[in-house]
Amino acid sequence: MKKIIECVPNYSEGRDISKVEKIVDCFRGKTGVKLLDYSSDADHNRSVVTVIGEPDPLVEAVVCSIGVAMDLIDLNKHKGQHPRMGAVDVIPYIPIRNVGIRDADECAKKTGELAASRFGLPVILYEKSASAPHRSDLAEIRKGEFEGMAAKLRDARWKSDFGPDTIHPTAGVTAIGARMPLIAYNIKLGTSDLSIATEIAKKIRHRNGGFRYCKAMGVELKDRGIVEVSMNLTDYDKTAIYRVFETVRMECRRYGVQVIGSEIVGLVPMKALIESAAYYLGLENFSAEQILENRIWMD
Amino acid sequence: MKKIIECVPNYSEGRDISKVEKIVDCFRGKTGVKLLDYSSDADHNRSVVTVIGEPDPLVEAVVCSIGVAMDLIDLNKHKGQHPRMGAVDVIPYIPIRNVGIRDADECAKKTGELAASRFGLPVILYEKSASAPHRSDLAEIRKGEFEGMAAKLRDARWKSDFGPDTIHPTAGVTAIGARMPLIAYNIKLGTSDLSIATEIAKKIRHRNGGFRYCKAMGVELKDRGIVEVSMNLTDYDKTAIYRVFETVRMECRRYGVQVIGSEIVGLVPMKALIESAAYYLGLENFSAEQILENRIWMD
Repeated sequence: MKKIIECVPNYSEGRDISKVEKIVDCFRGKTGVKLLDYSSDADHNRSVVTVIGEPDPLVEAVVCSIGVAMDLIDLNKHKGQHPRMGAVDVIPYIPIRNVGIRDADECAKKTGELAASRFGLPVILYEKSASAPHRSDLAEIRKGEFEGMAAKLRDARWKSDFGPDTIHPTAGVTAIGARMPLIAYNIKLGTSDLSIATEIAKKIRHRNGGFRYCKAMGVELKDRGIVEVSMNLTDYDKTAIYRVFETVRMECRRYGVQVIGSEIVGLVPMKALIESAAYYLGLENFSAEQILENRIWMD
Repeated sequence: MKKIIECVPNYSEGRDISKVEKIVDCFRGKTGVKLLDYSSDADHNRSVVTVIGEPDPLVEAVVCSIGVAMDLIDLNKHKGQHPRMGAVDVIPYIPIRNVGIRDADECAKKTGELAASRFGLPVILYEKSASAPHRSDLAEIRKGEFEGMAAKLRDARWKSDFGPDTIHPTAGVTAIGARMPLIAYNIKLGTSDLSIATEIAKKIRHRNGGFRYCKAMGVELKDRGIVEVSMNLTDYDKTAIYRVFETVRMECRRYGVQVIGSEIVGLVPMKALIESAAYYLGLENFSAEQILENRIWMD
């Protein structure tokens, strides 16, 4: 069974499309690697690539792209709205198929090692690959941005995991790590009262005592005259969609409000929805092997 | 996007494994065709192959297997417990991916045409491919078996759809048709009273006024001291899993009995479970394109 991992590297170039194309070329025409999507934002001056592949060829293609990006991007000249600390700013690896978070972590560490040894790039491991709890949050790592990173790396708490102890003069620092797929999930409430969605968001999100892998906020949908609890579920294996849905429904009772539906924005792993079906149908002894599509694409 | 169809041909040979292997060889090493499974039953003297593929190469491989089976099997000498009328007894085509029942029907008709023109085999189209309503049920078509088919084909109601007006002297008649994937689904009730499962089965099955694509019966699970409503769902697009589940739950109230779980036996198309998740979560505007796996395997 083929192992499939996703990678979503972010490059600090979103204006010179010829440069972006040279970077993206690293993901084209390679066995075991498939480019799914890429997009550039001129305001952010940043490009995001979505690519999947088998672990080894995927890592090799990502490392290739790091080399190309370092040749083309000089952060001393980079301006954009999005915070950034590296020519390749961040490289998340995400387990997709026949793999777990450990395989994604291995990819992250291999990429870090190779980028350090081949290009002299300092690398900080983040998220599930972080070498200490305070180093897992990307926003925390990136604080100070490119301009402040030279000083930050001298702090023992922010020492690089791979590569030199100081920034690369033009390419800065790169964060690399494994994370679970993220699901953008919104639950719609039959009320126009934003405070109800905001209150419920607080109850279910990690920050205020709710589910560990749930970020949430209340949002108004003025067109429809309703509100929603807008969420990111950052580990659907541990904070399941149906559990969040039922908890929001339960909290709604306090306000005499109905849940009128929900919505998944963007991509969702099949397993996250299968889990919800299995819960509601009370499926006994169900295995992913029973899904016809899994048999078809097994190898 | 690749079109994928499943075919589950049944051959009237389950004892001479060297012959079975020669038939199965038609599905090996061919581009666009993948052999998923095959099994032989000596008592039934019958073998069943499960193969998937793109429509054209799949049809070509199935036709190849008809030719091989006709060379190897003489129904005049065939004995077995399972009713049969042809060396290749029945060939169902099932839509799996990026296809509908019409594509499966096209495969069935092409296979019938080719088997008739190449091998002089009479073919009766059945299920969704049937040329008249009374010809859709396989059991009805097969009544009389090989020994009675010569007489039956002379009846205008049972005229062959392709090929000669009479049986092939050694290979009989073959039924070919399109059908939806079948889901074997059981709902467990928290009681040992079989009559409750039997009563509920009657209420939900087509034969007694229930859902059109639901066959059901009550079954006792002695080991667990419970009973179940045991079902075949023959078109999950039109008779959805969750609708059957909720209806059984509703009927259980009359008896003060709980639904304690359910079970899918064997394979299930991903879409059948995604539909259930979408119902329970009240998903708005959800598209199969949002399932990550569908993006990966799109081509």
